[in-house]
Amino acid sequence: MGEAIRILGIDPGLRRTGWGVVESDGSRLSFVAAGTIRVAEAAPLAERLCAIHDRLDEIIQSHAPNEAAVESTFVNRDAAATLKLGQARGIAMLVPARAGIAVAEYAPNAVKKAVVGAGHAQKQQIRMMVSVLLPRASFDGDDSADALAIAICHAHHRGAMAVRAAALTA
Amino acid sequence: MGEAIRILGIDPGLRRTGWGVVESDGSRLSFVAAGTIRVAEAAPLAERLCAIHDRLDEIIQSHAPNEAAVESTFVNRDAAATLKLGQARGIAMLVPARAGIAVAEYAPNAVKKAVVGAGHAQKQQIRMMVSVLLPRASFDGDDSADALAIAICHAHHRGAMAVRAAALTA
Repeated sequence: MGEAIRILGIDPGLRRTGWGVVESDGSRLSFVAAGTIRVAEAAPLAERLCAIHDRLDEIIQSHAPNEAAVESTFVNRDAAATLKLGQARGIAMLVPARAGIAVAEYAPNAVKKAVVGAGHAQKQQIRMMVSVLLPRASFDGDDSADALAIAICHAHHRGAMAVRAAALTA
Repeated sequence: MGEAIRILGIDPGLRRTGWGVVESDGSRLSFVAAGTIRVAEAAPLAERLCAIHDRLDEIIQSHAPNEAAVESTFVNRDAAATLKLGQARGIAMLVPARAGIAVAEYAPNAVKKAVVGAGHAQKQQIRMMVSVLLPRASFDGDDSADALAIAICHAHHRGAMAVRAAALTA
């Protein structure tokens, strides 16, 4: 499958944005780093978006991912919550794209299926399976575990695409 | 009221983002520039967000606004539309904030009230009143007219705040 590539998974949110970087080398996956960007809720919205932007930019500088993936989720609770999520998500897609990194999007079901094997899974199951798939992973909560799950999902899908492409050109 | 300041109003959207710059000198308002950022719908989301970012960045470089204002609206139609608007709005708030420009938010009612004099107004009334308040304004549609209306709204509110502040220090 060629050389190893680094994937940045992002689980965006206005209060907490989870991020996780994995390395994918053929079918082998390994943990690089993960964390949670926490933004002061009292700060004005524009400042909060700037803080998410600047932190994501630093993470990309530090870990040099080749590709990025974001969950294409939205909460159905209420329009105000969805608008907030959208604002954070816009930043999460913008920062890698401006750095020249392609950004893939996956539905929550696809992420759960890639990690747990079923489209419906609880937070706890995702955390456990991320630890099984990435034994050396350390993450500080559900948001960074979700971000690693998104990165794993992208590793699976891009692998499958490469196999398909190889079959087509064989 | 001191020297003239330039205000950038932004009406964000994933397909069309309206923008307008006005100059406010005490109670005098004048038109500087306005337009619509149109983004190819076929392009991937991350690229569309980058296009909005880069264009807004150019507008800020060209017209050097001192303050910015964005409408705090959300459509209640459906969650997917609200998420899309949120993504564009995140970029609209980020770009001025990263340039060191304070970003104010106004509810749609406040914008309509500042321009038309009533909290409920139709697109056509807003367009007409923007032309009355800014006789030299040229704008290419409802999105740029709305952006100018948002800038006018901010000019009124910041003026009122300055008068209040002056009264407090008198």
